[in-house]
Amino acid sequence: MNLAMIGDRIVEGNQLGPEYLDRGLYFGDGVYEVLRSYQGRIFALEDHLARFARSMHEVGIHEPDIGQIRQRILRIFGQAGLPNAKIYFHLTRGSEPRNHTPRKGLLPNFFMTIGPAPDSTKDKAQGVAVSTFPDWRWKRCDIKSLNLLPNVLARMDAEKKGCAEAILVNEAGEITEGSGSAFFAIDAKRNELITRPLGHEILPSITRQHVIRAAQGSDLKVVERTLTPADAAGLDELFLAVTTKDIVPVIRFDGQHIRDGKPGFLTKFLIDRFAALVCQDEKTKTPAS
Amino acid sequence: MNLAMIGDRIVEGNQLGPEYLDRGLYFGDGVYEVLRSYQGRIFALEDHLARFARSMHEVGIHEPDIGQIRQRILRIFGQAGLPNAKIYFHLTRGSEPRNHTPRKGLLPNFFMTIGPAPDSTKDKAQGVAVSTFPDWRWKRCDIKSLNLLPNVLARMDAEKKGCAEAILVNEAGEITEGSGSAFFAIDAKRNELITRPLGHEILPSITRQHVIRAAQGSDLKVVERTLTPADAAGLDELFLAVTTKDIVPVIRFDGQHIRDGKPGFLTKFLIDRFAALVCQDEKTKTPAS
Repeated sequence: MNLAMIGDRIVEGNQLGPEYLDRGLYFGDGVYEVLRSYQGRIFALEDHLARFARSMHEVGIHEPDIGQIRQRILRIFGQAGLPNAKIYFHLTRGSEPRNHTPRKGLLPNFFMTIGPAPDSTKDKAQGVAVSTFPDWRWKRCDIKSLNLLPNVLARMDAEKKGCAEAILVNEAGEITEGSGSAFFAIDAKRNELITRPLGHEILPSITRQHVIRAAQGSDLKVVERTLTPADAAGLDELFLAVTTKDIVPVIRFDGQHIRDGKPGFLTKFLIDRFAALVCQDEKTKTPAS
Repeated sequence: MNLAMIGDRIVEGNQLGPEYLDRGLYFGDGVYEVLRSYQGRIFALEDHLARFARSMHEVGIHEPDIGQIRQRILRIFGQAGLPNAKIYFHLTRGSEPRNHTPRKGLLPNFFMTIGPAPDSTKDKAQGVAVSTFPDWRWKRCDIKSLNLLPNVLARMDAEKKGCAEAILVNEAGEITEGSGSAFFAIDAKRNELITRPLGHEILPSITRQHVIRAAQGSDLKVVERTLTPADAAGLDELFLAVTTKDIVPVIRFDGQHIRDGKPGFLTKFLIDRFAALVCQDEKTKTPAS
């Protein structure tokens, strides 16, 4: 007899709903995205959808099509009525009794939530502290998958140290990115905005891409190169780039103050440029819903 | 307003049950075990519980205690009435709105299934084909976690090639283990049973440990060393070790026959020794339930 146990409760195996048989739960066999809106507009929706399509392709999940996902996003966004919303969605390979090899014809599970975007005013004004942690992640961090245990363990370590984010350091002693953010440094003397080049070791961050766009046309020159923790701690300004908060200044790195321990001038300059870019995109786009 | 969408259905966010808020689903934030019974006895239960306790410790999940988990296993095993059962269980950090940093005091979610163990008679008699795939997994494969997407992708690749298992090969060009099994080779001339030494790159497989125990007292000398795919394909016998099927002969490796393409003599010898060891353990243990 097939049985299952949920906590202390035994049920018949064939009574389990699809939520208990989700390959997302058994294997992290799925991909996800996080979006946010500013003043009633979803920012960079098409960029996120394009990345999601790539993630789906890389893990071999072939439906639903992106048009259907876009419609679902616009529908829930319209219904929620939140001008500044955070939207999370994932797609798993589907539900079936646990087996590494998926059954042919399995239907994927789509799941989405929407709620208010976090208020990042304080983080932006005061900056945050970060600490380093070994990058234990898999070799395909360019895929935005549900396999996030190493990110969680890194973040738990950061929290223990009173830090808001963990900066991951690979076996070569190089910074890859944050556990849930891209990582940037500024060399003020050289007017350089420094971030790691894209590759399998980091997520092709949409916010990273728009930070680079925000820097374009300014005196800041974008330089894609790797940094060690010692390099980073010795530079003039550091910040994180993340969808839900865009740019967050880093004021302490592994316990060491960055310059005077206050958000840097050029970081604030980029925060303003980013806000202007969001505003500009709003004006040039057709209504979101 | 907080909303959620399950497939095409929109629900209020606060109506989501804990199964939709499981950190196991969002992050693969949990650990698991697979057990099997032979003739009414769970094999190596205490070994699996000890490994599970270690996995829990490594990811910082501190409850329930192992005694309680043992009781649950014995309870469902007793109720199922399956002499040859496969038992799967996992423990996730708990359910809450998605956030990398877990809330203090979160209660873990325990989930278990039991059903008939797969019949491995044919695989044991005929052997299986395997193919290699890059080892994309994280750097802590010694933790039996729910982050198994690279294992799934490897297995899907193997299936496409008509193979039963993927043998993972790291960036150094060495075999680590199978996507869901330990990997062994036999050098018949030297009477060597070869398997990779334990470390962060592989799971401390319980079946591996009992295969080594089965070889003890025979002429086969256990040698812990790394093998390349070329090494493996040139050796006399290969096999997989996995809880649900114990020893499964490998007869084809990346399309190449191993010797005459039939299960090897020494592998069959170990299958018999393993069966004897299971039988012996049954006799010396107190009743399981």
